[in-house]
Amino acid sequence: MPRSPDELRELVEAYLEELAFTPELGGLEPAVRYPLESGGKRIRPVLTLAVGESAGIEPGPGLPAAVAVELVHTFSLVHDDLPALDDDDERRGRPSAHIAFGEAAALLAGDALLAEAFRLALSYPTPAVARELVQATLGMIGGQYRDVAGDTADLGELHRLKTGRLFSASVGVALWVAEVPQREQAPWRAFSEELGLLFQIIDDVLDGDGYALAHGVAAARALADEAAERALSRLAKIPADTTVLAELVAGLAARTS
Amino acid sequence: MPRSPDELRELVEAYLEELAFTPELGGLEPAVRYPLESGGKRIRPVLTLAVGESAGIEPGPGLPAAVAVELVHTFSLVHDDLPALDDDDERRGRPSAHIAFGEAAALLAGDALLAEAFRLALSYPTPAVARELVQATLGMIGGQYRDVAGDTADLGELHRLKTGRLFSASVGVALWVAEVPQREQAPWRAFSEELGLLFQIIDDVLDGDGYALAHGVAAARALADEAAERALSRLAKIPADTTVLAELVAGLAARTS
Repeated sequence: MPRSPDELRELVEAYLEELAFTPELGGLEPAVRYPLESGGKRIRPVLTLAVGESAGIEPGPGLPAAVAVELVHTFSLVHDDLPALDDDDERRGRPSAHIAFGEAAALLAGDALLAEAFRLALSYPTPAVARELVQATLGMIGGQYRDVAGDTADLGELHRLKTGRLFSASVGVALWVAEVPQREQAPWRAFSEELGLLFQIIDDVLDGDGYALAHGVAAARALADEAAERALSRLAKIPADTTVLAELVAGLAARTS
Repeated sequence: MPRSPDELRELVEAYLEELAFTPELGGLEPAVRYPLESGGKRIRPVLTLAVGESAGIEPGPGLPAAVAVELVHTFSLVHDDLPALDDDDERRGRPSAHIAFGEAAALLAGDALLAEAFRLALSYPTPAVARELVQATLGMIGGQYRDVAGDTADLGELHRLKTGRLFSASVGVALWVAEVPQREQAPWRAFSEELGLLFQIIDDVLDGDGYALAHGVAAARALADEAAERALSRLAKIPADTTVLAELVAGLAARTS
């Protein structure tokens, strides 16, 4: 019986709580830990663990890779919130890192989160996990730059980079940890692209921007439903138990926050 | 006949000029490239290549690792110069990255430099190169935080983290690329510690801070000479041709800028 998304999320939370950061970070550690404690939905690491279980591994071996993805995501939030970028004082109902700890500490905490992510990804014998993560990180940074620079003409491309790449990496790192051969990874990766698109459209609907602004809320919801259907039909082609992944698709399609 | 430091520096410059960054960085690329073109001394990558040659490899295989270290160093300069940290408008006689490209682009360019560094370090079959780099990066960030937070009581510890760790990694990555077994790495690493200390003291003498401020210029110069002597005596214990490394020690001890 595969673990439910809620059970997987609890494993992620427990791992994060116990996670020992590099001791040399010293007094910076509270600023590194703070943005990880904000009760996010942990969609990416749960996805990593669920793909891992579908591909035949227990959550344990997948946790460092799963949490590495969450750390890259958190790094991007901490830096995006800085005054130089989005200048957001709040994140999930709490003061942003730079409000709570000051700009200098938040900037360095973001850097440390990125480096800690690679440290975790590098705990595997194969460098493939860290390679997957670094490519996604670079795509994400490129997407963030397009957003900041107002280069938003190609909304699909912007989101493929800013959100999609890290979603795909959530799936990709699990495939490497589970030692799924590259030639068998295509259906999983096709699934992850639709899932990332679904996530982004719903995000825009909830925020009233992006796809919702470009197409209207009803049309955006229709696009999301189509992405969810494609995600499910791609799952159906994977010769494994993907029931929990289908549950994640349904959860993302129905989310209201 | 091993290559001179100047020859090695030219190889680093040529590699940097030809370096293809991740295409998805798009319009951010000029801001990523700019801080790398400022004509630094390339001390760290030259050290990597010189250690590599002493340990029996050609510069070619060492260049991605050497330049990865330089990218981490450059990432730290770009972020340190930001208004939230040191707020420096100039770097090596040119406008800092955030003056030339704006704060948002400089922040993201720093992030991209760090990620590109890991991409290069991950181009090797062994994850040991990237592991060496990530540990040094985390130590460096911890040192930078101590500096920003005014936690400068233990000047030696501060510098071991802020400068020394990346110096040691310059040597360490070369050892991994050259496949020097871990049990034979100790004398090389002892050498790198003295070299990092030498570099830092001279830096402080030239800037009139740190060691120069704490001990006076004359006493700081004496400390630098002692570090140089220890570095040379550690080189003498390494069963390899270390003449170019001895030349680097002399160059660092005598530098005036």
